[in-house]
Amino acid sequence: MKIYMAGPEVFLPDALAIGQRKRDICERHDLTGLYPLDNALDLSTRDASLQIFKGLEEMMDAADVIIANLTPFRGPGADPGTVYELGYMAGCGKRCFGYCNDPAPYAERVARFMKVTTASDNLIDDEGLTVEDFGLPDNLMMIHALELHGHPLLLPRAKPADIWRDLSLFEACVRLAANRAD
Amino acid sequence: MKIYMAGPEVFLPDALAIGQRKRDICERHDLTGLYPLDNALDLSTRDASLQIFKGLEEMMDAADVIIANLTPFRGPGADPGTVYELGYMAGCGKRCFGYCNDPAPYAERVARFMKVTTASDNLIDDEGLTVEDFGLPDNLMMIHALELHGHPLLLPRAKPADIWRDLSLFEACVRLAANRAD
Repeated sequence: MKIYMAGPEVFLPDALAIGQRKRDICERHDLTGLYPLDNALDLSTRDASLQIFKGLEEMMDAADVIIANLTPFRGPGADPGTVYELGYMAGCGKRCFGYCNDPAPYAERVARFMKVTTASDNLIDDEGLTVEDFGLPDNLMMIHALELHGHPLLLPRAKPADIWRDLSLFEACVRLAANRAD
Repeated sequence: MKIYMAGPEVFLPDALAIGQRKRDICERHDLTGLYPLDNALDLSTRDASLQIFKGLEEMMDAADVIIANLTPFRGPGADPGTVYELGYMAGCGKRCFGYCNDPAPYAERVARFMKVTTASDNLIDDEGLTVEDFGLPDNLMMIHALELHGHPLLLPRAKPADIWRDLSLFEACVRLAANRAD
């Protein structure tokens, strides 16, 4: 079974080493991990970003399962690139797993970045937009997509010391995927 | 032809009025607009968010096309909920259109929210993560998904006065969808 390993850790300076650790975890469970940086590409070409996209879409099409890292990225919510991939895999009818190394509810996360006020029983952000307040850790689309297309989001009891490199919940997702391999 | 009208304007206080304007635009082009808030739901129930998700997934499954509003939302990038929907529709093989009322490149948007520095020719954010620097307005996944699954993202020449309520580019997407209806 092939697992597409999605997440914003590809933007870290040690992204390749993290990918190797993820791949090793998959192998220990007799699964094959596909990592976005596996595609060797010449980033200096004019259409590099299009070639990256095409490579990643092929990789997703070849995978049976996605494990998405939904740890908040540059704001209160998950990395939109990773979320696109989660949506794509759900749309393709693939099994979806995900984890997030920050257990805080979404409304609390928003309040870290901007002033949140209350008006007519709604939480409102500093642009006047309602803040989702279902007690979920992120936008309901990703939370329930995981629940209905695979397995509910895995969250830690407390934020690990290194939210970008702690792979405990990634491994827990791999175990879930391995147990449900058909 | 049914169009799923995705975007974070559902979080505005006048979300219903904006939905009606969008629906009217679709009708003028002989298309049917489906708006996320069309599903009447009791938000006080324990599983309200799950019921919302199920309703939206049914709506997307019924639609032929998505028009996604990718205007930056609570940070440098698009609303992850909308992005999930774009991915889902692309995965389902539906035609994808999108617009964004902020024409700034992604790296410039990130610099509005945090300090961006340069290290070994890469832009780096304040957590040490590389900032995508392809000159694109957002993460390459959404940009090229639109290009390959429908039509390239529409951007304004300059930010409109009201980025949440200006529907010029939404209407341009509707026109594109109408012209390509099979």
